[in-house]
Amino acid sequence: MEINKENISDWLKELQDSICSALEKADGNAKFSEENWTREEGGGGRSRVIKNGAVFEKGGVMFSAVSGKVPEFLLKEKEHAVNVDGKSTFYATGVSIVLHPQNPMVPIIHMNIRYFEMSNGVKWLGGGIDLTPHYINEGDAKYFHTELKEVCDKHNPHYYPEFKKWADDYFFISHRNETRGIGGIFFDRLNADDEMSFEKNLAFWKDIGSAFSGIYTELISRNKNKSYTDQNKQWQLLRRGRYVEFNLIYDKGTKFGLESNGRIESILVSLPLHASWEYNFKVQPGSEEEKTLALLNKGVNWV
Amino acid sequence: MEINKENISDWLKELQDSICSALEKADGNAKFSEENWTREEGGGGRSRVIKNGAVFEKGGVMFSAVSGKVPEFLLKEKEHAVNVDGKSTFYATGVSIVLHPQNPMVPIIHMNIRYFEMSNGVKWLGGGIDLTPHYINEGDAKYFHTELKEVCDKHNPHYYPEFKKWADDYFFISHRNETRGIGGIFFDRLNADDEMSFEKNLAFWKDIGSAFSGIYTELISRNKNKSYTDQNKQWQLLRRGRYVEFNLIYDKGTKFGLESNGRIESILVSLPLHASWEYNFKVQPGSEEEKTLALLNKGVNWV
Repeated sequence: MEINKENISDWLKELQDSICSALEKADGNAKFSEENWTREEGGGGRSRVIKNGAVFEKGGVMFSAVSGKVPEFLLKEKEHAVNVDGKSTFYATGVSIVLHPQNPMVPIIHMNIRYFEMSNGVKWLGGGIDLTPHYINEGDAKYFHTELKEVCDKHNPHYYPEFKKWADDYFFISHRNETRGIGGIFFDRLNADDEMSFEKNLAFWKDIGSAFSGIYTELISRNKNKSYTDQNKQWQLLRRGRYVEFNLIYDKGTKFGLESNGRIESILVSLPLHASWEYNFKVQPGSEEEKTLALLNKGVNWV
Repeated sequence: MEINKENISDWLKELQDSICSALEKADGNAKFSEENWTREEGGGGRSRVIKNGAVFEKGGVMFSAVSGKVPEFLLKEKEHAVNVDGKSTFYATGVSIVLHPQNPMVPIIHMNIRYFEMSNGVKWLGGGIDLTPHYINEGDAKYFHTELKEVCDKHNPHYYPEFKKWADDYFFISHRNETRGIGGIFFDRLNADDEMSFEKNLAFWKDIGSAFSGIYTELISRNKNKSYTDQNKQWQLLRRGRYVEFNLIYDKGTKFGLESNGRIESILVSLPLHASWEYNFKVQPGSEEEKTLALLNKGVNWV
């Protein structure tokens, strides 16, 4: 089948369907609600949100396919600005996921995969998947990274080490000197190079998207029935506060969305239902909270 | 008495003392705790925080006086960059306040007054005070703005209209197309001009700081015993979510603090203990929430 933007978008919609259905099954209680929206400048999206579930407190699995004139900042980039002018157009399509669980022992997860093309023929793929446990469980962390590494290794042995480092650098809260969680992989502007054709990279990118449900439902079933205390819940709220800080201050997708007249509710669905900030909160020496905090660093080898 | 940075800082510390004492009296239960901190590059601060009070859920009254080399971005400004070089130094001192009340009928308040000088003799005053009611009460809004107008008018008839507009423009959440609350006044780089000497502007600036306690304790006593429902509380959490959005995305003081190695806990004390984000929340037609939302616009004449 020919690769074109329409069938990439169609594939993403099917992915959204299959992920929502796997997550509803994992929750066992709540169902996704859906809004279809359009964007004045071109395109639109299909937002699916779940809340007050047995497993999920709040989460979104969002599909979008938007188009319009190429934004100013891209026109200025030499590398991709061949044959572009004020009339050049772009098409961007992707699936974005953030899930905030009820139980503090279940990690927050995020995935985004996106495809971008311009009318001058330039096109690229991007994506990322990262895990933010409120309490780091080293077995789960190893499982998560091993699964990602396997998907990467199937396509290119350089991808996991390179994209794992990229995630460490990207999902970093610099004013706290903490990583957001245990990272994962992040990549952007993946195109064709000497080693890999665009078709091969597309296959890798699809494999990442397809791996999501299996990895996260495994982490859910490992942890959803664990008991927790009020103190665990309070810590979860504080960690969600950090998640808010990252998304509002550093996240490029959020920033781009807010500045480019995106659909605010779809962009900010990544924020938790409840979050908390305590002044000068200190973890207790020897506590599980202290252990987690000590592991929120770049460069940890989880595999 | 000669005007110099030391006696401006001393005056600000006395202001911090008197405001904390007025707020403790208004709360009737909780007391401020204090941390003194120093900054590697020069100077430090005295942070005072109140929490779990009868009136205040969380709040800070923060004094700081920091110094060091003039930041890069100021060296580039033609207007103030006379006789500055890599060895030029600055001194910045101020008091910053944010108070998040327990009762949703009591408004959130913010004030900041600051003094800045450079070793080349350039100096200026800045400040702002704005009110963020979870539910707008037009009588309270009129009272708040009338009090600010009176302080301004005593010094310069142009100040209230000019600084009220500045506050409308500054305390604006553009991605929501909402003001943060009912505004107040905002001014920056107030120096000496044809009309007003630096001494006269300093007197105005001190009057703003001194007016804070009386204005806010009046608003507290008007509202602190009002009853409220779970729905009012939920709305308060959502409005606090907007407050977080403003502070993390737009507030220049927060941004400057995070980027300049400021004391994170003192900067982010402005964030509420609890905040909430609901996907696609809609106010009920005819509700108090709808009325408040309809008033969150620039250019409302509250006086």
